[in-house]
Amino acid sequence: MDEKTLSGRLTDAGHELLQRVYFEDTDFSGRVYHARYLHFMERGRSDFLRLLGIRHNGLAAEGCAFAVRHMTIDFLKPASIDDVVMVRTSTEHVGGARIVLRQEIARDDDILASALVTVALVDARGRAGRLPDRVRNALAGGH
Amino acid sequence: MDEKTLSGRLTDAGHELLQRVYFEDTDFSGRVYHARYLHFMERGRSDFLRLLGIRHNGLAAEGCAFAVRHMTIDFLKPASIDDVVMVRTSTEHVGGARIVLRQEIARDDDILASALVTVALVDARGRAGRLPDRVRNALAGGH
Amino acid sequence: MDEKTLSGRLTDAGHELLQRVYFEDTDFSGRVYHARYLHFMERGRSDFLRLLGIRHNGLAAEGCAFAVRHMTIDFLKPASIDDVVMVRTSTEHVGGARIVLRQEIARDDDILASALVTVALVDARGRAGRLPDRVRNALAGGH
Amino acid sequence: MDEKTLSGRLTDAGHELLQRVYFEDTDFSGRVYHARYLHFMERGRSDFLRLLGIRHNGLAAEGCAFAVRHMTIDFLKPASIDDVVMVRTSTEHVGGARIVLRQEIARDDDILASALVTVALVDARGRAGRLPDRVRNALAGGH
Repeated sequence: MDEKTLSGRLTDAGHELLQRVYFEDTDFSGRVYHARYLHFMERGRSDFLRLLGIRHNGLAAEGCAFAVRHMTIDFLKPASIDDVVMVRTSTEHVGGARIVLRQEIARDDDILASALVTVALVDARGRAGRLPDRVRNALAGGH
Repeated sequence: MDEKTLSGRLTDAGHELLQRVYFEDTDFSGRVYHARYLHFMERGRSDFLRLLGIRHNGLAAEGCAFAVRHMTIDFLKPASIDDVVMVRTSTEHVGGARIVLRQEIARDDDILASALVTVALVDARGRAGRLPDRVRNALAGGH
Repeated sequence: MDEKTLSGRLTDAGHELLQRVYFEDTDFSGRVYHARYLHFMERGRSDFLRLLGIRHNGLAAEGCAFAVRHMTIDFLKPASIDDVVMVRTSTEHVGGARIVLRQEIARDDDILASALVTVALVDARGRAGRLPDRVRNALAGGH
Repeated sequence: MDEKTLSGRLTDAGHELLQRVYFEDTDFSGRVYHARYLHFMERGRSDFLRLLGIRHNGLAAEGCAFAVRHMTIDFLKPASIDDVVMVRTSTEHVGGARIVLRQEIARDDDILASALVTVALVDARGRAGRLPDRVRNALAGGH
């Protein structure tokens, strides 16, 4: 694995990223802790944006960062230690100030978690602003 | 603070728990990482159940554990390092196999995050079963 | 529990803070995940400093933050879900640019983890500087 | 990237694993939260063992799990969002009941964190037992 393959790959539908379930992701029930699925999804969003040319540290230098505004998530089947899961991300809607992404986490043919995630670009004070055209265009073309 | 006050308190509406925002809860944007609000909410649910007499380790001894099945969450305003937040939990609906809880995280008069959380009691294989009457009764009376 | 008791209390030896073990702290082995003890210890250090009048957001406004430089930790006995643990922190040494703290996590009379932690105050570029007198004096008097 | 490359690779010295720094790894100081380096190291250990044929879920089926007993760690330079880091693991010593691993996290030529980690195999009650020969042999040959 090199740095390039580390970020997953763009697909016709959007992006997919393979991830491993480690000790840190599980809880005493023996399964993955529910909030950890949000981590896997955030990694998928970050790498989707990365492959579209948008980087967190570049945005940070401009004083802004992506923030999740709304999330609807179904936890369908549990993942366990050592599992390999696929994180799939696609663009559902690109608005002036918000993006809605569809994300799912799958293990082979089983969908383990499915979500709709609304993100906005906020400044240092936490205020959402209009998305830069390069971000809008990249995502609008990314589905 | 002693062990009793550590678990927050039952209210007419349900339960409330005061929590501190620490280093671990923040990310490089300077605010609380979105998935951390789910941790705060899980602590609220655990302590609500604890004060109603239901303990995770007791359930685990019977081979079952609570699992989150569905969540809808709005991230309204950001919390920051050193903030003190109130986690409020109330019972929205108690079904045969599922409980729906309403949760919010507030800082003074500001609601920072608001969620509806559906939980089920699952066995070691991850299958949901009918909620024990003592759990149903405790929660039905807890709002 | 109110905001004041949330931060634990100063003792002759330094500081102590009661904490609950939640779902998020455990892993599939059924015990607390080893790295989580570092979280409990960091909460102890933050609240020790807080009660001595030193706040992270105040330091951040001056462009600096505490950073852990070195840590030696023994994991002696495991903690489990629902446990209540006491985090004890005391000052071992206050140097010009570094502070060494002794920390332990105990459940009743059992010491679960014991550590020596060296922290420094770093600027935005990650460079350590001389500790402000108010920080040195507060900690030197805090043991 | 496929499932095989996801686990890093065995080297003459032991094992190396490339990892990305995501949002979840950072804190409000703008750098990686110190306890997260332990997560990166645990992923390195898990994948080293995996490539040597030892799996957590296999051990769990036998009622045992690896537990960290002691750790000495230097935090030398900070990592930041979007960084790619290399986690290197090698066997320092294999005893009857304990393994000592040397681990480091590097970004290009910079070593960011360096640690000695002592792990033991514990049963469901947390008691350490003699390491199975297949584990000892795999690790003794792995450096």
